[in-house]
Amino acid sequence: MNFIDKLLAASRRNKSLLCIGLDTDPELIPENTSIFEFNREIIEATKDLVCAYKPNLGFYEAQGIEGLQALKRTVDYIPDNIPVIADAKRGDIGNTAKGYAKSIFELYKFDAVTVNPYLGLDAIEPFTSYSEKGVFILCRTSNPGAVDFQSLECESADGKRPLYEIVAIKAGELNKNGNVGLVVGATYPEELKVIRGLQPDMPFLIPGIGAQGGDLELTVRYGVDSNGEKAVINSSRQIIYASRDTDFAEAARKEAMAINEKIDRFLTR
Amino acid sequence: MNFIDKLLAASRRNKSLLCIGLDTDPELIPENTSIFEFNREIIEATKDLVCAYKPNLGFYEAQGIEGLQALKRTVDYIPDNIPVIADAKRGDIGNTAKGYAKSIFELYKFDAVTVNPYLGLDAIEPFTSYSEKGVFILCRTSNPGAVDFQSLECESADGKRPLYEIVAIKAGELNKNGNVGLVVGATYPEELKVIRGLQPDMPFLIPGIGAQGGDLELTVRYGVDSNGEKAVINSSRQIIYASRDTDFAEAARKEAMAINEKIDRFLTR
Repeated sequence: MNFIDKLLAASRRNKSLLCIGLDTDPELIPENTSIFEFNREIIEATKDLVCAYKPNLGFYEAQGIEGLQALKRTVDYIPDNIPVIADAKRGDIGNTAKGYAKSIFELYKFDAVTVNPYLGLDAIEPFTSYSEKGVFILCRTSNPGAVDFQSLECESADGKRPLYEIVAIKAGELNKNGNVGLVVGATYPEELKVIRGLQPDMPFLIPGIGAQGGDLELTVRYGVDSNGEKAVINSSRQIIYASRDTDFAEAARKEAMAINEKIDRFLTR
Repeated sequence: MNFIDKLLAASRRNKSLLCIGLDTDPELIPENTSIFEFNREIIEATKDLVCAYKPNLGFYEAQGIEGLQALKRTVDYIPDNIPVIADAKRGDIGNTAKGYAKSIFELYKFDAVTVNPYLGLDAIEPFTSYSEKGVFILCRTSNPGAVDFQSLECESADGKRPLYEIVAIKAGELNKNGNVGLVVGATYPEELKVIRGLQPDMPFLIPGIGAQGGDLELTVRYGVDSNGEKAVINSSRQIIYASRDTDFAEAARKEAMAINEKIDRFLTR
């Protein structure tokens, strides 16, 4: 099953737009709990509440070979009917991009990946050429520094636009396999609205609710497609560190349910 | 010793602006030779001819855990007085960027890294805050797709400029520790000239001579600083695959010497 179908099936089955970011940091999890054990408990406690999981590779690479082994075990452990997104933000030229794509899609067997557009379309094609896999292109990121370059007003074929809008439009050229999505931070709701207007059918991966302060109501209202779907709303710290004690899995479940309830309320409002 | 001093010392000692890209691909190296063995022989044959080595992490990640172990052994094997640049092109927000920086600088002990500017300055600071380490920001990449976004004319404080020029200027704001450089492809010599004008003192990492077709004479002429230094001219395939047979190390040495002679000729012309 290709990524989009798998995402929609999980989202409908679990009635959820929530993606849990498995940004597992050994310094923040209970003592005597390994990274994999922590992830396993989070997954067991939330697998009926999410549309996807998203480990950010930076957290695992920081732990060396051991971290990457925990990442592999985590991806293997997640039930087959829930898509797993590699938050890798990779971007490199031809040959090297192929290497990264092989690692992420073939070795780790992720269902989707995040990529950086700065190098241009030919650096993204080695990822989108895996037609069964999803590729989320960074468009408008959730951090304060996003404005440094992404907001620059640029000349384009149809007039002056901020860079992130041009990225959103160009992303369409890469979507021959229908497997392209965009990353748009919840911390910029007005931009999210504009970008949804430019790409009404693409899945959006939306980080930045919770710890980063993004507005959940506007995220839901502006982020979903016309069917109220295809928004993959990510929360990491707010859920996985809802409790810093040994009841972390139970606390994560409660927090995930609370976010789902809020999303439902905003969807039907 | 900090990165810039180490780079200049190696460059002067070996009278070289050449960086060898260790983009080692198991499908292109002799049978019965491991990635590490191949790298070790290349390093032994060229360590008096280079100013730096640059493994691209994509090639190693494509080989899974084994590839990353070979990468670690390679970095450890390179003599301490030759800087090693991680061609990683990473870019992520705060916490995660810290994880990548920790992995690259502390676990692998690289001397420098390449990073992607799309996310903004706050995504690069976790790297530049390692004041002893070098950080090369992607400015103008060597691939054909570089034009897709990097060439867009953008509005800036001092008038309209292509995005890559704005990146080159903003890089200066991150250079408080004097450890920032730029990546500028040899395939765009006119742009290289302009960028050198914008940042006369920064080290430039210049890929794209050799297999990608960049003009070596223009690269040297436009890439160096006013002392004829601080250009790190990278060649990967042209050197490490100069012979595809068991004499690869000897062939790599010959090719590296030939490139050095050409660079010398262009420097003094």
